[in-house]
Amino acid sequence: MKRRTFFGGAAVTAMAAASVSKVAMAALPEPVTAEGPETAPPLVPTSGRPYNPVVTPNGWSLPWRMNAGVKEFHLVAEPVERELAPGMTARLWGYNGQSPGPTIEVVEGDRVRIFVTNRLPEHTSVHWHGQRLPNGMDGVGGITQPHIPAGKTFVYEFEAKRPGTFMYHPHGDEMVQLAMGMMGLWITHPKGAHPLIERVDRDFCILLASYDIAPGAATPQVNTMLDFNLWTFNTRVFPGIESLNVRQGDKVRIRIGNLSMTNHPIHIHGHEYVVTGTDGGPVPKTGRWPEVTVDIGVGQMRQMEFVAEAEGDWPLHCHKSHHTMNAMGHDVPTMIGVDHRGLVKKLQKIVPDYMVMGERGMADMGEMEMPLPDNTLPMMTGRGPFGAAEMGGMFTLMKVRKDQKRGDYGDPGWFRHPQGTVAREWTGELPAPARRPAAAPQKKSVPLDVRKPSRGHHGDH
Amino acid sequence: MKRRTFFGGAAVTAMAAASVSKVAMAALPEPVTAEGPETAPPLVPTSGRPYNPVVTPNGWSLPWRMNAGVKEFHLVAEPVERELAPGMTARLWGYNGQSPGPTIEVVEGDRVRIFVTNRLPEHTSVHWHGQRLPNGMDGVGGITQPHIPAGKTFVYEFEAKRPGTFMYHPHGDEMVQLAMGMMGLWITHPKGAHPLIERVDRDFCILLASYDIAPGAATPQVNTMLDFNLWTFNTRVFPGIESLNVRQGDKVRIRIGNLSMTNHPIHIHGHEYVVTGTDGGPVPKTGRWPEVTVDIGVGQMRQMEFVAEAEGDWPLHCHKSHHTMNAMGHDVPTMIGVDHRGLVKKLQKIVPDYMVMGERGMADMGEMEMPLPDNTLPMMTGRGPFGAAEMGGMFTLMKVRKDQKRGDYGDPGWFRHPQGTVAREWTGELPAPARRPAAAPQKKSVPLDVRKPSRGHHGDH
Amino acid sequence: MKRRTFFGGAAVTAMAAASVSKVAMAALPEPVTAEGPETAPPLVPTSGRPYNPVVTPNGWSLPWRMNAGVKEFHLVAEPVERELAPGMTARLWGYNGQSPGPTIEVVEGDRVRIFVTNRLPEHTSVHWHGQRLPNGMDGVGGITQPHIPAGKTFVYEFEAKRPGTFMYHPHGDEMVQLAMGMMGLWITHPKGAHPLIERVDRDFCILLASYDIAPGAATPQVNTMLDFNLWTFNTRVFPGIESLNVRQGDKVRIRIGNLSMTNHPIHIHGHEYVVTGTDGGPVPKTGRWPEVTVDIGVGQMRQMEFVAEAEGDWPLHCHKSHHTMNAMGHDVPTMIGVDHRGLVKKLQKIVPDYMVMGERGMADMGEMEMPLPDNTLPMMTGRGPFGAAEMGGMFTLMKVRKDQKRGDYGDPGWFRHPQGTVAREWTGELPAPARRPAAAPQKKSVPLDVRKPSRGHHGDH
Repeated sequence: MKRRTFFGGAAVTAMAAASVSKVAMAALPEPVTAEGPETAPPLVPTSGRPYNPVVTPNGWSLPWRMNAGVKEFHLVAEPVERELAPGMTARLWGYNGQSPGPTIEVVEGDRVRIFVTNRLPEHTSVHWHGQRLPNGMDGVGGITQPHIPAGKTFVYEFEAKRPGTFMYHPHGDEMVQLAMGMMGLWITHPKGAHPLIERVDRDFCILLASYDIAPGAATPQVNTMLDFNLWTFNTRVFPGIESLNVRQGDKVRIRIGNLSMTNHPIHIHGHEYVVTGTDGGPVPKTGRWPEVTVDIGVGQMRQMEFVAEAEGDWPLHCHKSHHTMNAMGHDVPTMIGVDHRGLVKKLQKIVPDYMVMGERGMADMGEMEMPLPDNTLPMMTGRGPFGAAEMGGMFTLMKVRKDQKRGDYGDPGWFRHPQGTVAREWTGELPAPARRPAAAPQKKSVPLDVRKPSRGHHGDH
Repeated sequence: MKRRTFFGGAAVTAMAAASVSKVAMAALPEPVTAEGPETAPPLVPTSGRPYNPVVTPNGWSLPWRMNAGVKEFHLVAEPVERELAPGMTARLWGYNGQSPGPTIEVVEGDRVRIFVTNRLPEHTSVHWHGQRLPNGMDGVGGITQPHIPAGKTFVYEFEAKRPGTFMYHPHGDEMVQLAMGMMGLWITHPKGAHPLIERVDRDFCILLASYDIAPGAATPQVNTMLDFNLWTFNTRVFPGIESLNVRQGDKVRIRIGNLSMTNHPIHIHGHEYVVTGTDGGPVPKTGRWPEVTVDIGVGQMRQMEFVAEAEGDWPLHCHKSHHTMNAMGHDVPTMIGVDHRGLVKKLQKIVPDYMVMGERGMADMGEMEMPLPDNTLPMMTGRGPFGAAEMGGMFTLMKVRKDQKRGDYGDPGWFRHPQGTVAREWTGELPAPARRPAAAPQKKSVPLDVRKPSRGHHGDH
Repeated sequence: MKRRTFFGGAAVTAMAAASVSKVAMAALPEPVTAEGPETAPPLVPTSGRPYNPVVTPNGWSLPWRMNAGVKEFHLVAEPVERELAPGMTARLWGYNGQSPGPTIEVVEGDRVRIFVTNRLPEHTSVHWHGQRLPNGMDGVGGITQPHIPAGKTFVYEFEAKRPGTFMYHPHGDEMVQLAMGMMGLWITHPKGAHPLIERVDRDFCILLASYDIAPGAATPQVNTMLDFNLWTFNTRVFPGIESLNVRQGDKVRIRIGNLSMTNHPIHIHGHEYVVTGTDGGPVPKTGRWPEVTVDIGVGQMRQMEFVAEAEGDWPLHCHKSHHTMNAMGHDVPTMIGVDHRGLVKKLQKIVPDYMVMGERGMADMGEMEMPLPDNTLPMMTGRGPFGAAEMGGMFTLMKVRKDQKRGDYGDPGWFRHPQGTVAREWTGELPAPARRPAAAPQKKSVPLDVRKPSRGHHGDH
């Protein structure tokens, strides 16, 4: 594991600590930092109580050290660079090298101590959303504690009282710091069996956030209230979001929290699910609704659970059609029904590259190589095995395979459809009855690629 | 039934099929098309398993043919003209002559084959939202199938596995095609008795969509993310939406799906209801909440059920006040409290028609005949028995009558209130005790009319 | 009680009634009016059936008179001045001197008569949201009754059939009148014991509304659909919202209704709650979800219930970060990462006060005294015991104290944290074990103050 270093490992990256007192630093757990946006494998616990770890797509879980029975974590609030998808890197604020910050995983009843070092140019604080804790550990700058000044380290300590899905984020200059990407997931695993918390085979967690970054820019507009242009899962956009790869028949949990400025109705194809828990706790079984789209309000967390019954590549996405697009201008006038052919020919005599978009819709854009500003993603992008996917933003795939190994989170490639099970052109004959191809080779096929050559893509991925 | 033609009928309108191969077309079910926005009566099944049909206000259900035990439907994606209300017609994209497309009704367990002919100027696909089906039939262009090119017909085939309320819509150039009106309802009726699906007396279904059409224009702006100006039930606005007419004591189900870009809290007056099902399936009885306003997220469907206990004309509407208005400028400055009388007199010497809106509120607008651009609806409109209704958009009435005949979906006219049951001016005397007028004549009264003379209103309605 | 006058009291403020007929007025209950935004103590019933009264933060409940077994209320729709927080007063429309209007409290089964006098410059009507009532009492102008003309009094009469949390608001020129602040709460208490309605120790009720008032102005823009700049609890913004003060161990109910134009996810710190009821009625116990953030759709009401277990000052707020800010420009460009120091020095030679905001974030703004237009609140404001709170809008505190007396709703001052329970700078030593300070004095500490000198602040507060 090249991109990340762990406590005690040979390659520990102790962060330079110019503004943190050396004496204090001496006793602090060395901060661990992430360099890239790849999905880390589950962080299997080697100390403390055992638990069934989660996987954070395009993210990772933060290692800890045990200190006299207390789990000690070290978060570092700091400016980070986050690749949103190959071809675009944003300059954000986050924790420990990335936005979102690392997922924190503890067990119900754990005593937890979190050191928070502030390397931002302004003060911050950390609110532990959803936790029952002493009022002074609640992280509300000015109200329950002094703000953490730039350059200082504060310490929080409390017991993880109830199992569930939580978040952490600043509670000081909150609008700005959330707009810049400061957020992370917190999972408290149940201690032993729990009547309302089932053991699952795959447990994923995702934070929803939105950014407003002008084409060609890298830093978000922090005052935007509504007109965001980048809608992200764990601060990544399609096709930069890794697929959720599961074995057919797996019991799957997907935990999703929303720290954007609007509702996100999260839809999955081919399967129904129930919401088994919120940041308030487990939902009673008698109160669970079957859903294919759950509307997640801002500041809410929802645990979706289902059995992955059907093989295939199933979209998992926000159902707002603009949220599965990348940056675009929302006030471009419609050209549908307007015939510019004469005009275009004339203009092309003067401006050879001139073209008009959209007079017959925009479907062509998925196939076109348009000139784009640097550090800008195409509005509709990604390719599947059958052509342009014409997507972006909050969109990924759940890949369900009969042959996916237990514990293997690797991408199995594109689904190989049994014969006669794909919609196809009508040629006057009905398709032959469905039949699974004998011995379909499970070799890894080409993953979703990107229309635009990657720039700013780290070489070590 | 003048406006629509059915399989095998004398007046079948086979659509011209220049771009579809003649050989293939020969075996296709002839496409059926709708011409106008009137509510069709329930489509009583004459082949296949029996079911209790729905009514789609200002819409219709698509006939099918049985072919060796398979229900065959033929959808045609194409440009359409949709009258939003008398006085305004939009140029949209839809299916089989209208937007929304026809409602598809099948029975749990049915084998269904859908031919989709693409008469749009660009490619498309159809996603069968909420269905369990083979991955290759899921309709995600590029990912699970090739896009359907312009001029081609594709065939989908799957079993309708679970009963419920579903939708269909494109999953290719999705933002544009949804903004243009491409969507339809899909109802899978239960096969026999179901413990969580009650038989109802009236079963209505509505799709929510929003459009951004500039005053005087007819084609939507397809890039609008937030600032829509037309909020529709089945692509109609008040007062163009037909009332939901029921018999007192009827068990009523209203199925509503949302394919706009924001939540719509659907409110009904005078009655409480429970949500009995979603696109994920039936809600357990122990988990049903009593509501008068259910907030429907984008991509969600909700089945509201209640007994229509109280006679009267009861509004059913989105509770966002701007969504019960028609097109307006949202950045017009407030004139409240500003006295322009002197200024106006001077201006009227030069511009005789000049007037200032809103210095004492806007209530006068419901009564005024303002000059409007062609093909534009008044912002606040409609008249009831007591004056201007001052509404638009996502607003209609549920008319509950003791004397409404079973199976009669016709408009009973305005409610005749029992004496002493209408709010009235206080004259220093209490109203007489409530008393029902003897032998209230049930003759049809004047329906909601429109402030502006209808233009572009088809003569055959 | 200086600010408000009651029926029969010595200081009754009969409103001047030039436009209301003297004969009619003679028999009307004298209207009661509120002058200021202080929270009134619970209105303990002295006539009619007994009930456990609610408290409306920064609001009050409307007295009634009994008339031959009927509870008679008198609402007056009229222009009002509402202080949003010290330093800013808005010119709104409301009822009986304030926006929101007074809370109406009745008991299940009560016969209620409401006189509504219209002192607005335009017509209005009152819709009794959520009530089962005769169709003609539903308050839909034009549809179920004539609009109430300016200067006239109308009378509504119906039985309060079911217990619950309701609202009242106009249903004529609705968009304008809601944008101007016309709304109020209606509580129907249960008659005797109810299996799903528990008795609580503290019962608060809040209406959510949003306004668009330009900096320096006082009257809302009534056409705004999305881009509001003031997000309010009972038409007050932080730090003008009084805290919810409770005794540790109290069973608390908070009833919240939403009459803005978007969802508000209401989050509480340190506690989980369940939603026990909606405007549709009580939620079955088997269907209640544990939550820390409930997303309240427009036109919805939610009753949150929990035991206030943990001492402290716990934020209660909308989780949309822009909704806990006061008026700001949403299109100000980001300065983060831009170094203006050279430029600023040059500019300051010409414009001595010139400064650039936000190149290192905006946290400084909570501490700065920026020049602001008259009648304008700082964007981020309020101070807690540890410094600037950097909040605004829909934000307040629930103060839980062991020593709060039953029935005492007064502000206990800031929480005194037990030793070692506040997040603090890491100095290389672990904090001492938590210990409660002996005999913590409960004297009233300084409340949240405001950065800007109060203008238009009534002297009698």
